[in-house]
Amino acid sequence: MTTTDASARALQLNAEGQLRHFLTIDGLDRPLLTQILDTADSFIEVGERRIKKVPLLRGRTVVNLFFESSTRTRSTFELAAKRLSADVLNLDISTSATSKGESLSDTLLNLEAMASDMFVVRHSRSGAPHFIAQSVTPGVAIINAGDGRHAHPTQAMLDMLTIRQKKERFEGLKVAIVGDILHSRVARSQIRALNTLGAEEVRVIGPSTLLPRDVESLGCRVHYDMPSGLKDIDVIIMLRLQRERMEGALLPSEREFYKVYGLNTDKLAYAKPDAIVMHPGPINRGVEIESAVADGPQSVILNQVTNGIAIRMAVMSMAMSGQRAQQGLDAEVRA
Amino acid sequence: MTTTDASARALQLNAEGQLRHFLTIDGLDRPLLTQILDTADSFIEVGERRIKKVPLLRGRTVVNLFFESSTRTRSTFELAAKRLSADVLNLDISTSATSKGESLSDTLLNLEAMASDMFVVRHSRSGAPHFIAQSVTPGVAIINAGDGRHAHPTQAMLDMLTIRQKKERFEGLKVAIVGDILHSRVARSQIRALNTLGAEEVRVIGPSTLLPRDVESLGCRVHYDMPSGLKDIDVIIMLRLQRERMEGALLPSEREFYKVYGLNTDKLAYAKPDAIVMHPGPINRGVEIESAVADGPQSVILNQVTNGIAIRMAVMSMAMSGQRAQQGLDAEVRA
Amino acid sequence: MTTTDASARALQLNAEGQLRHFLTIDGLDRPLLTQILDTADSFIEVGERRIKKVPLLRGRTVVNLFFESSTRTRSTFELAAKRLSADVLNLDISTSATSKGESLSDTLLNLEAMASDMFVVRHSRSGAPHFIAQSVTPGVAIINAGDGRHAHPTQAMLDMLTIRQKKERFEGLKVAIVGDILHSRVARSQIRALNTLGAEEVRVIGPSTLLPRDVESLGCRVHYDMPSGLKDIDVIIMLRLQRERMEGALLPSEREFYKVYGLNTDKLAYAKPDAIVMHPGPINRGVEIESAVADGPQSVILNQVTNGIAIRMAVMSMAMSGQRAQQGLDAEVRA
Repeated sequence: MTTTDASARALQLNAEGQLRHFLTIDGLDRPLLTQILDTADSFIEVGERRIKKVPLLRGRTVVNLFFESSTRTRSTFELAAKRLSADVLNLDISTSATSKGESLSDTLLNLEAMASDMFVVRHSRSGAPHFIAQSVTPGVAIINAGDGRHAHPTQAMLDMLTIRQKKERFEGLKVAIVGDILHSRVARSQIRALNTLGAEEVRVIGPSTLLPRDVESLGCRVHYDMPSGLKDIDVIIMLRLQRERMEGALLPSEREFYKVYGLNTDKLAYAKPDAIVMHPGPINRGVEIESAVADGPQSVILNQVTNGIAIRMAVMSMAMSGQRAQQGLDAEVRA
Repeated sequence: MTTTDASARALQLNAEGQLRHFLTIDGLDRPLLTQILDTADSFIEVGERRIKKVPLLRGRTVVNLFFESSTRTRSTFELAAKRLSADVLNLDISTSATSKGESLSDTLLNLEAMASDMFVVRHSRSGAPHFIAQSVTPGVAIINAGDGRHAHPTQAMLDMLTIRQKKERFEGLKVAIVGDILHSRVARSQIRALNTLGAEEVRVIGPSTLLPRDVESLGCRVHYDMPSGLKDIDVIIMLRLQRERMEGALLPSEREFYKVYGLNTDKLAYAKPDAIVMHPGPINRGVEIESAVADGPQSVILNQVTNGIAIRMAVMSMAMSGQRAQQGLDAEVRA
Repeated sequence: MTTTDASARALQLNAEGQLRHFLTIDGLDRPLLTQILDTADSFIEVGERRIKKVPLLRGRTVVNLFFESSTRTRSTFELAAKRLSADVLNLDISTSATSKGESLSDTLLNLEAMASDMFVVRHSRSGAPHFIAQSVTPGVAIINAGDGRHAHPTQAMLDMLTIRQKKERFEGLKVAIVGDILHSRVARSQIRALNTLGAEEVRVIGPSTLLPRDVESLGCRVHYDMPSGLKDIDVIIMLRLQRERMEGALLPSEREFYKVYGLNTDKLAYAKPDAIVMHPGPINRGVEIESAVADGPQSVILNQVTNGIAIRMAVMSMAMSGQRAQQGLDAEVRA
């Protein structure tokens, strides 16, 4: 375990090793990731009930603190919190409090003083949720809903849940992540989670202009073309082309990208016949993926969405429970 | 019954003839419309209680999917859903998901995958809610909150509820709808509902430029002036001048319109002495209606608002119940 | 008691002297203000529980009617209402209904017809909440969340709660309010509340350009400099510089203001050693207050935020209860 991992672990877990914040996959071991997946499995069943509610966060206040707006991610966290019976406050910070010149720290101190129990944080700057977790009042849980290019750990975990549902194991699996690895906040989280959970091989496939320099150090092999990259692959994870995040001309054109890396029926044939196809959505049809594949029998894209609610319910309830246990532990120490 | 009616009926009702979507008045017969009114009557009493909640949609997720923004209509659906104990998610689609280039179908598939139970849909394009109802996952109910110039069936039904409360019957009633019939999404729904429920006569009153060509085929008589149009009338339904929807100069001026068709005390005298006056709101005082009439003893405009909550609670709870029965029927067929 | 006080009292209290609206401190006597503080004290404990909810407003509909947007104030009212178990509808009126040209009266009549129980009103015009309270349907409570330069009574009461928590009494206390008294909606409310609750002396400190002409008639003494103004002071209330509300050049510069009136460690030494420092937030660090003071041991700024939720829960539940009692009284009179 690296120093970074050790500090990420110390920040995210309480003294008994229970989750108390969920910021990154780094520093979390296989038993803990497996516990998240098992907890999410139990919430999948809740989503199928007529009364889709459990009282785990009843009377708790969850604040969706979005410094970067994202209706889709915010909605899934809002639904997850409501199904846990929490009260939810949506704050789109980009357009409000800061307009009166208040600092991030002051905004947070104020929200804590309102007896908030959990902040779901999305921020364009890498590390913002970590910064908040380091300074927040004990008892308040921080959930990372995506920070800069750094991490999007609930997205990575919903992908793991989907893989486990379809493949029943990680051992022996070969997984390819295709596209714009450089600007992706989820690729790092995915590579880490796959390695921790015991996948046999993780590959990244993309043009060199869209790969980070040190990408292999993350625990993956690099391929620059689809035929070699998809050979023997069990799971294909397509990434979104973050057009809004790409400044300057890193790519010849979308059309060119699609021709080389876009997933169509022909390219899918390079992978194993029972390979599954994943995409975090929203899909750019005809840019990263052909409709015949996105809507085809190997696609599990909509399962990912369903699993997203379950994973968010899992980490929210686990972190709240870890915070509560921590409070008990602290009280014992003081006594 | 026309082919259109038959298909509207088939889409909206389950195999046992229960409501499962609420898209249009077309194809719904008198017993079903009466059932909606009776159900709404029972919810009127809920609105008068201190605790204005019933658990019919507890644990259900209702998504307000507004492709065209309307605070007023959205608020009434939101309140109705909350009083049925549902969890509500408000999505203003015009400003969000589509900005990332996602198609309507993909947005819907994603929301369905989040285990949503009901979509309340408002769209500027006629037919959008029908399109959605045709493709939606079984078990999910669609409620039309206004589509293009086509229909606004909950508005029409709250008008029917108001008429029945005040006049106690539809038989023998003469009803006049006044104003911009051409651009109105509710006039068609009203004419249809009045005919189905047995009103004696429906008239439309307006300048020829604001009447659809085939208006009489909807089941009404045309009058171009108020003195003849309001003679012997029991119910006057004023429409809003949809100024934002009127392109070009169909009217001389608002002032001219008011002079000829605006409802004031003098013109109201052409109708029966106990005629009631309705308006969907928001009122343009001095454009369609004089304040003395809007606030006068014959006005039932605020009753319409109260009834709007009750009607929305009625169709939401009936559609959810019809979907559930359908799921049971489907399970039996498969067994 | 002045005529104004008598009419404010009559509007805010029911026939038995219970709060039914909360619009201004004017006209409310010491026992009633003390009852608000005592009720809020009981809600402080609710905020410390794991399940931060009481069923006092269950099934009630609270509408946040913000004609002037304020995320911070709206959030505290939303949280307070949710912790009382109410259903909450947020309406940002500046951007919605009025765009269709509806009058304030018509908007309100419509919301009342939807069986709303309470309006929390914020408006840039002084007196708007009073106007609404005068015309609203019996049974509906109005809470003033800030109107023009007139009043912000929940802010004043949360300040009183904070003072009582820290100083345990008002008798013998000397309180200084520092800064832009002229544009402050809260200073008037504070001066009134402090005098009613029995503070020994209230001082205002600021440049003559930022003091109202008749300020002494509000019940305070004027100081133009900090050394004399802060002498023997127990409580310092700093005001925000309402930069957005200051038209023209009433001040040399923010820097100049800070030099003379900004609260730093040196100036704080003029007050009693155990003086507490208050600020309504959001803080302009380095404009009205130095960080060392804002974050120092004498600062109670975050206690104010916590108390804000409790005070809002208190006035909301008291007003609803007063409305309900009034309804009972009215029914008796009619019988």
